[in-house]
Amino acid sequence: MMTPDQNEFLTRVGPGTPAGAMLRRYWHPVAAACELTAEKPIKEVRLLGEDLVVFRMPPANSELQPRYGLVGRHCPHRLAALTYGKVDQEGIRCPYHGWKFDAAGRCLEQPAEPRESTYKDRIRHAAYPVQKLAGLLFAYLGPAPAPLLPRWDVLGREDGRRWGVIESVIDCNWLQAMENSVDPAHLYWLHGNLGAPNLPISAERFIALGLQPEYEEKNEFFRFDYGIQKRRTTKGHQPGDPPLLEQHPLVFPTSLRLVLSINSVRKQGFREAQRFTEEEMKLGYLHHMQIRVPVDDIHTREYLVNFIPSRSATSRPDEDDVAFEFCELKSPEGTYNMNVVTAQDALAWESQGALVDRSQEHLGVSDRGVVMLRRLLKEQIEIVRDGGEPMGIIRDPEKNKIIDLDTFHEAYGLFRTEAPTPAPAEAS
Amino acid sequence: MMTPDQNEFLTRVGPGTPAGAMLRRYWHPVAAACELTAEKPIKEVRLLGEDLVVFRMPPANSELQPRYGLVGRHCPHRLAALTYGKVDQEGIRCPYHGWKFDAAGRCLEQPAEPRESTYKDRIRHAAYPVQKLAGLLFAYLGPAPAPLLPRWDVLGREDGRRWGVIESVIDCNWLQAMENSVDPAHLYWLHGNLGAPNLPISAERFIALGLQPEYEEKNEFFRFDYGIQKRRTTKGHQPGDPPLLEQHPLVFPTSLRLVLSINSVRKQGFREAQRFTEEEMKLGYLHHMQIRVPVDDIHTREYLVNFIPSRSATSRPDEDDVAFEFCELKSPEGTYNMNVVTAQDALAWESQGALVDRSQEHLGVSDRGVVMLRRLLKEQIEIVRDGGEPMGIIRDPEKNKIIDLDTFHEAYGLFRTEAPTPAPAEAS
Amino acid sequence: MMTPDQNEFLTRVGPGTPAGAMLRRYWHPVAAACELTAEKPIKEVRLLGEDLVVFRMPPANSELQPRYGLVGRHCPHRLAALTYGKVDQEGIRCPYHGWKFDAAGRCLEQPAEPRESTYKDRIRHAAYPVQKLAGLLFAYLGPAPAPLLPRWDVLGREDGRRWGVIESVIDCNWLQAMENSVDPAHLYWLHGNLGAPNLPISAERFIALGLQPEYEEKNEFFRFDYGIQKRRTTKGHQPGDPPLLEQHPLVFPTSLRLVLSINSVRKQGFREAQRFTEEEMKLGYLHHMQIRVPVDDIHTREYLVNFIPSRSATSRPDEDDVAFEFCELKSPEGTYNMNVVTAQDALAWESQGALVDRSQEHLGVSDRGVVMLRRLLKEQIEIVRDGGEPMGIIRDPEKNKIIDLDTFHEAYGLFRTEAPTPAPAEAS
Repeated sequence: MMTPDQNEFLTRVGPGTPAGAMLRRYWHPVAAACELTAEKPIKEVRLLGEDLVVFRMPPANSELQPRYGLVGRHCPHRLAALTYGKVDQEGIRCPYHGWKFDAAGRCLEQPAEPRESTYKDRIRHAAYPVQKLAGLLFAYLGPAPAPLLPRWDVLGREDGRRWGVIESVIDCNWLQAMENSVDPAHLYWLHGNLGAPNLPISAERFIALGLQPEYEEKNEFFRFDYGIQKRRTTKGHQPGDPPLLEQHPLVFPTSLRLVLSINSVRKQGFREAQRFTEEEMKLGYLHHMQIRVPVDDIHTREYLVNFIPSRSATSRPDEDDVAFEFCELKSPEGTYNMNVVTAQDALAWESQGALVDRSQEHLGVSDRGVVMLRRLLKEQIEIVRDGGEPMGIIRDPEKNKIIDLDTFHEAYGLFRTEAPTPAPAEAS
Repeated sequence: MMTPDQNEFLTRVGPGTPAGAMLRRYWHPVAAACELTAEKPIKEVRLLGEDLVVFRMPPANSELQPRYGLVGRHCPHRLAALTYGKVDQEGIRCPYHGWKFDAAGRCLEQPAEPRESTYKDRIRHAAYPVQKLAGLLFAYLGPAPAPLLPRWDVLGREDGRRWGVIESVIDCNWLQAMENSVDPAHLYWLHGNLGAPNLPISAERFIALGLQPEYEEKNEFFRFDYGIQKRRTTKGHQPGDPPLLEQHPLVFPTSLRLVLSINSVRKQGFREAQRFTEEEMKLGYLHHMQIRVPVDDIHTREYLVNFIPSRSATSRPDEDDVAFEFCELKSPEGTYNMNVVTAQDALAWESQGALVDRSQEHLGVSDRGVVMLRRLLKEQIEIVRDGGEPMGIIRDPEKNKIIDLDTFHEAYGLFRTEAPTPAPAEAS
Repeated sequence: MMTPDQNEFLTRVGPGTPAGAMLRRYWHPVAAACELTAEKPIKEVRLLGEDLVVFRMPPANSELQPRYGLVGRHCPHRLAALTYGKVDQEGIRCPYHGWKFDAAGRCLEQPAEPRESTYKDRIRHAAYPVQKLAGLLFAYLGPAPAPLLPRWDVLGREDGRRWGVIESVIDCNWLQAMENSVDPAHLYWLHGNLGAPNLPISAERFIALGLQPEYEEKNEFFRFDYGIQKRRTTKGHQPGDPPLLEQHPLVFPTSLRLVLSINSVRKQGFREAQRFTEEEMKLGYLHHMQIRVPVDDIHTREYLVNFIPSRSATSRPDEDDVAFEFCELKSPEGTYNMNVVTAQDALAWESQGALVDRSQEHLGVSDRGVVMLRRLLKEQIEIVRDGGEPMGIIRDPEKNKIIDLDTFHEAYGLFRTEAPTPAPAEAS
């Protein structure tokens, strides 16, 4: 049974909180690059409880690509919001009195101060590094030096086509989303239930949903370098067939790596998924990553990135033109878009409460993945609190070319290509 | 003058509050039966500050009628909302991991737990009894054994036709509504004023509204078995005519019993009231009950039940098909529907504040009904606090066949049919 | 650096606050007279954190003009809102039980009390004096005797045409608006930036906006009888031309007096500004006053009054028919109407926060007007706290015929007509 204090310890993200300090050691997306244009170069964002603006500076003469900055939302002069400011090749200018800042937070101009004034040199505005990968702008809010931005396979591979989805904000704490990623049982019940609300619970129902006719499966959880690897074993399609394996990890602390069926993605109605090529349809699956961004204690933003291997397409991870479509998870009246699987998840998470009171829970054996995540989370928060570096931080470029997350799904036709990494004993 | 502490004592309804403990000794409606269907069998409700779901289970093979359950909104497993769950003949299943509960709060299934697990037997979910009467589902949130659900005449009579109205939630504490029911003076001023906003205050105005030409009446208040009986004496229609009597009670703690003029009900625009038969029009009046439900400290829901005696119609009190229409008291912008008399009341109650600060009041002689109610309320709260049973609780089925509330209205043509119950001396 | 306590001291407006006590020594508009009509004679208002209703009583037989009252919103009887009450020549009647109050707060009737009761004579409702000037209803919430309602030139002059604008409520504290009025630098940057969002910062841009090609100007601040007089010196239109002067005051504590260019007013799209006569167009400028009303700690309402001198029109300051048009500063989604200059201001003020945290500021030399205002404000609050009368209170009718605020703008063609008042040395 968790106490309210323990719950706070694991979940709060603002400056000065233990979990917030741990989360600040990782990169988080703040926008898709395509959300910022020459015409609309500034976007208000909120990340880990901090009010910020991300902005796009037009390419300087010798450059081909725009540069990006992320600074505190309120100008240090008199706290007007830079949201309505003006951007040029050097930085962002406050709309109120024209103070101008570069992406490092240096104050470059204070137009109304005397020409000879050195006051601007004594001003330093909050500023954080931004890097682009897979069409997303990632930010790092932790202490210098920033680690490398991890090139997870879905984000870094070039031998296929990539696109993404930006979801509307989910009104609950980030950990409710992450617990869902080490909780295999919810697949049958949540997605089974909400995906087919008028069918009774039965073998026929599960088959109709593309699930096994019975809820009978083996789930294992292994800690690995980048989080918790999950392995599910289900019965083969036909009696006598060997069991089918599926493996996909929770990438600590805020992501989920999956393989999805092409048909399932199409049925959810995403715009880009209506344009699959014959080659892609034939492949039948795609690679997928869900990145959850802790906006603040009670709001989470989810970015979805998809990658389909293809002989006819290539994509560079740092390109601007990765298409991101926006997905409204629910109507303003609160009706969830049940066609979308992540909206079904959001329904469950939000319904637990803005920050679920874990002192009221009754966990079972089937929650051992959740328990494992909480222990890992506690351990990593304490490592940071005690001055250490948490798991999965990458500083060696050799290790960051492409990070293979050892993800496969035999039922969808994706078999593991090499010998498995030896799995450590499952944590108790 | 009431102190803020005394105000809290009389008004707060949540678990653990003195008034909440008293209110939990009575049955309260949580929905109309027609709001729950086979297609939409679950409804979120809030009662006495508790978040619940009421649900309709399809009739089992040997049954003709559906059964109903009322349980805590959040599953004890990981607190997802049962709102989005699935109902069968046995109970309700959580949408997240499939835990299933019956109407008594027993946990029947935990699908992802090991088959041999007895964990489910150690889980008990919050559950409350539900009973149907007059098309409404009543709930009892107090200690066992539950008393009988009172069969007030309007709810239990079968010699006529019954229908009802569900109003939009009123944004104030329940006691503001109840004080209105022992406050005869507001009839002239509130309903007179808002029902005819462009007429000056005058005898002509009152006549136009069907009131006596002068505000000149005698009001008496008597405590009786089920609350406070009110008797109003007004002048006869013509000079020399004997005075006219009207009697209608506040049914403790949350209802009002009235006789209404058919014409007044028609003018308010209720759908069902446009279909009065010739026989009903000729009768000229109907029986009426307003049941106020304390949703929480600052929200109240009102159900209206109407009954017209008729030789050509009958109705069973436990039938499902009592028609309830929904009445929006005000627009989203806050404009009240002034055609509806209860919207005029809601305007007054809400305008006093979400929970009126009674320490700022200046009561007069004409508020003696209000004072009497507050004294009775304090007395009954203290009885419950001290381990006793409050007034009007019925446990003898003989007394619950039909409870005649001795209500009549001579100006509308309804005279008392038998000798009056001897009224005790009016409380000072 | 300001402490949070000092920030509260200067900004909070409610009853019992130091700044609220100072602000209560001045008259503030609560409505335009044209907002109250015979059909809709009552309006809810909120002023200095107090919930009130202003109402219009029809002219009595011997009178030509309606009279006005301003009383507490909640009836002292049982706290129903007088908002929905009924007005006659004598006063306002509560909708709930008909208690009637005159504009002085006396209780005239309690219809349900016994005829011989003297209870009403012991009731006194909160009531404040109201006076009409320039089509606005001004209220005084301070201790008696009320000072004279100041006849500022824009409000009191009769040799021309007058009209006004009521803006939607601004969601921030009043002092953020007032600091803007001693902050000349924002003109170039805020209005320059938001008025031409797609132009880079350059000399051409400033010229396009009708500003000087360079931000090069001298600003002086002088304390005077009614607040802070500001004088701006800019370069002449052509090389060799003498410098151009502009002078306009902050009228303590809540107003700004300006001269505006006719063209600028037209471009903002105000309805009345599309009807300028040939004579008015030729004059090229108009007189303008912005009156900011502290609604409560975090809301401010701004009234704009315009006056154009004219040989062909006259206007009386106490006329009812001064046209006021309503201006929505932003959409419900929060998009500001950038065509309107005061919407650009509102954007800046609101973006600082509902009540800006001045402990986070970094003021510069160019903020000396703001610093001067804060010192003056502190001084005046302390004077009131210590029993004195703050600056600019007028009790001598001789001084109140028309108060010339010595406002001119040479670049717009309005030169000072007489010798300037000797300016005291600028406050440090």
